[in-house]
Amino acid sequence: MTMQNPVTVEMSPMRSQDEFSDWYLDIVEKAGLADKRYPIKGMNVWTGYGWKAMRLIDTFFREEFDGTGHDEVCFPLLIPQNEFQKEADHIKGFGAEVYWVTHAGENKLDIPLLLRPTSETAMYPIFSLWIRSHADLPLKTYQIVNVFRYETKQTRAFIRMREIHFFEAHTCHRDFEDAEKQIKEDLDIMARLAKRLCLPYVLCKRPEWDKFAGAFYTIGIDSMMPTGRTLQMGSIHQYRENFSKPYGITYENESGEHVHVHQTTYGMSERILGALISIHNDEKGIILPPDIAPIQIVIIPIISKTEPEKVTAACEELTVTLKTAGYRVHYDNRDLRPGNKFFDWELKGVPLRIELGARDLQNGIVTLARRDTGERIQLAKGRLLEGIKEAVSGIQTSLYSKASDTLRSSIQPATVLTETKPGINVMHWCGNEECGHRIEEATDMAVLGEPVGVGPTDGKCIVCGKETGKTIYAAKTY
Amino acid sequence: MTMQNPVTVEMSPMRSQDEFSDWYLDIVEKAGLADKRYPIKGMNVWTGYGWKAMRLIDTFFREEFDGTGHDEVCFPLLIPQNEFQKEADHIKGFGAEVYWVTHAGENKLDIPLLLRPTSETAMYPIFSLWIRSHADLPLKTYQIVNVFRYETKQTRAFIRMREIHFFEAHTCHRDFEDAEKQIKEDLDIMARLAKRLCLPYVLCKRPEWDKFAGAFYTIGIDSMMPTGRTLQMGSIHQYRENFSKPYGITYENESGEHVHVHQTTYGMSERILGALISIHNDEKGIILPPDIAPIQIVIIPIISKTEPEKVTAACEELTVTLKTAGYRVHYDNRDLRPGNKFFDWELKGVPLRIELGARDLQNGIVTLARRDTGERIQLAKGRLLEGIKEAVSGIQTSLYSKASDTLRSSIQPATVLTETKPGINVMHWCGNEECGHRIEEATDMAVLGEPVGVGPTDGKCIVCGKETGKTIYAAKTY
Repeated sequence: MTMQNPVTVEMSPMRSQDEFSDWYLDIVEKAGLADKRYPIKGMNVWTGYGWKAMRLIDTFFREEFDGTGHDEVCFPLLIPQNEFQKEADHIKGFGAEVYWVTHAGENKLDIPLLLRPTSETAMYPIFSLWIRSHADLPLKTYQIVNVFRYETKQTRAFIRMREIHFFEAHTCHRDFEDAEKQIKEDLDIMARLAKRLCLPYVLCKRPEWDKFAGAFYTIGIDSMMPTGRTLQMGSIHQYRENFSKPYGITYENESGEHVHVHQTTYGMSERILGALISIHNDEKGIILPPDIAPIQIVIIPIISKTEPEKVTAACEELTVTLKTAGYRVHYDNRDLRPGNKFFDWELKGVPLRIELGARDLQNGIVTLARRDTGERIQLAKGRLLEGIKEAVSGIQTSLYSKASDTLRSSIQPATVLTETKPGINVMHWCGNEECGHRIEEATDMAVLGEPVGVGPTDGKCIVCGKETGKTIYAAKTY
Repeated sequence: MTMQNPVTVEMSPMRSQDEFSDWYLDIVEKAGLADKRYPIKGMNVWTGYGWKAMRLIDTFFREEFDGTGHDEVCFPLLIPQNEFQKEADHIKGFGAEVYWVTHAGENKLDIPLLLRPTSETAMYPIFSLWIRSHADLPLKTYQIVNVFRYETKQTRAFIRMREIHFFEAHTCHRDFEDAEKQIKEDLDIMARLAKRLCLPYVLCKRPEWDKFAGAFYTIGIDSMMPTGRTLQMGSIHQYRENFSKPYGITYENESGEHVHVHQTTYGMSERILGALISIHNDEKGIILPPDIAPIQIVIIPIISKTEPEKVTAACEELTVTLKTAGYRVHYDNRDLRPGNKFFDWELKGVPLRIELGARDLQNGIVTLARRDTGERIQLAKGRLLEGIKEAVSGIQTSLYSKASDTLRSSIQPATVLTETKPGINVMHWCGNEECGHRIEEATDMAVLGEPVGVGPTDGKCIVCGKETGKTIYAAKTY
């Protein structure tokens, strides 16, 4: 779902930048998503719980891109300096951010190698060998790899890292129109992914000065963080022939002419996980959407003095039943009070908790607790699977719709540069680059660009007052 | 299955080193498993088909290690020089093989970073933070990542690469005995994996001079290649306290003492895929075991002039039926003669082919062709799924048992240094290191080590003639 128009929903209260930063830093560690103590800045350890969540997100990428005829590939990490330097804007954009391998063993390398900051310059020399004729098109590939960017800004788990878990789709097409169709397909994929991830977003065509290094145009995919700042979770790029010319990627068309391909890319990263935990949480901890929760249901025995074995046996049986039904289930039989266990699993965002005690067994019921609402649902044993299915789908829908409301309420019109608000400000802009920069300077916000799919509305440029049909979104960003 | 004793099965004819090398080079490319034209030596592109096979192998790793209580993690690629240098033997073993990152952007780094050649020195500083008390043990983790080794020998796809797709399990235990239990579990895992991968092997405790850099002992897992040389597909290491001491990994035991943990690792790599295609093939191409085949069944329409739509419709329906039954199926509806299609898919090793024409439809049958034996099986439509299941399991069993026979027949006794044979030579050795080196020099073979699980047999050291109960395997290796 993309949010296009300012509406009048009341805006949720926003969290201050500092307070949110501290909370975020703390929760990543406490929920066991990553370990930040690795001795290189901006490079964290993926611990078991966080890595499982990320791998579930990867699974959705794979399902979507396999399902739309993309082939998963894996290109080498290292790129020779001379290949990297073929596209002038690209090297300008990434040159200051790359890690250089200069030596191997005792030897100085003849040609320095760089760690991929993104894989255009690794892939495209090979694409020029793979593509011969129009029958080889479209070429649709993707890979899931880690990329490396020497960030100079403050790093933050999942959000701004120097080693980044990355998804990148790369496609080649016979002409601009076919590449545009691909971008349409990418937008459909994003819409489906967002539903599973409970992550509503806005789409903006980035201004010229903020497009991807080498792109013809860039569509940014931004989510709304609780501080009122947007976070770019992904982007889709139309390259036209900007890369196929320097890399010589041509095909022979039906008339025997050699023609340059048109290319697109679609990138997403571990920022999705960062956005998820930033958006779905409460004072108890994070709330994971059931689709990406490493543990969807935790079972906690309420052991009483009478017949504890019966409760244990029932919990074990229930674990098997729910696993067989396809859920990711954990039976927490630690020697701790139930309250302590509740605390742990709420912190880690497990969407459903089942409590089972001797009295429940007598009454033939099971108690289910929803992590998002705190609601407790008593289910007769015969309705158990049905009730869990309803609760899972209820959480998924409710998280998505709550986040959508927040995003929607954060989009508000602005007509005076000095009167912007936290969130996304909708402004008229004449399209002149100088006026664009003036917006950014005066508001300390970024121009996210023209919202995609919104029709023209007449108004006056917020800077120069010139009549224009062009609106843009502006916001503070991560 | 591990082959322990020399037996008298007739040995299969072996292929010459050169002929096999040429064939291998050629088949990797023709079968579409990897593209070797990437502009860095020893770093190939994983193309769609090869990557799918590798990812299926990864799936088995995950199933086995998740199923035995290991947690999947992901540690950073880069390791600071000072962490790397803490264990003296380790740096001696890997120092000449590492890639060094010395610069980032415009800056020279204060501490050079290296690309992991293996992850001990990335993980163990963090393990020392994770482990506090006996309750944290055993710690069982694994990761699937690429590692980097600056190979100076001739590179070869999957077998000797500079970027290597790698599996590594790392565990910490309270004492040596518990670590030994882990190694027992690892051996059980290997036995199960080998069945799925159709890859029989021998286990040898490597001689002192060939153990892993820093290990207390190393068990090599070797397969037999068609040239009579062995290929190490994996290895299991007992580290004792060799790493926990320099990295300070201790726990507090029940008596309140701080004790160093004992550690093990288990490594496997893309060599498994290299071994698979080297072992399972014929003059038509490779033969993939059904469990790792990206396409398990290819459906080829036999289009005649009368009613071609009926055949097409039946093939489409069959594709859906087989996909629903859980098979990886491809319907090849290219505008080519069936014979050309047969050729392509046989080359790529698809284990089962289904041919479907108008006559088959009339007769209510489906023709199945087995890639391994060439056998054609006519199945009544009602017996289709049952027949496919039988064929799949038949291929899996037959590939494994054929390779086992070859391995078994390659293990032969040798009593005179000048009379070794291709394959594995079983020799008595007194245990003296000088005699060991003499074996390697005189035979141009490597001492693989003492076969694991074989009882002592008395004999005379093949070098010095001293009485000994120790036998070793020796072979030419990759």
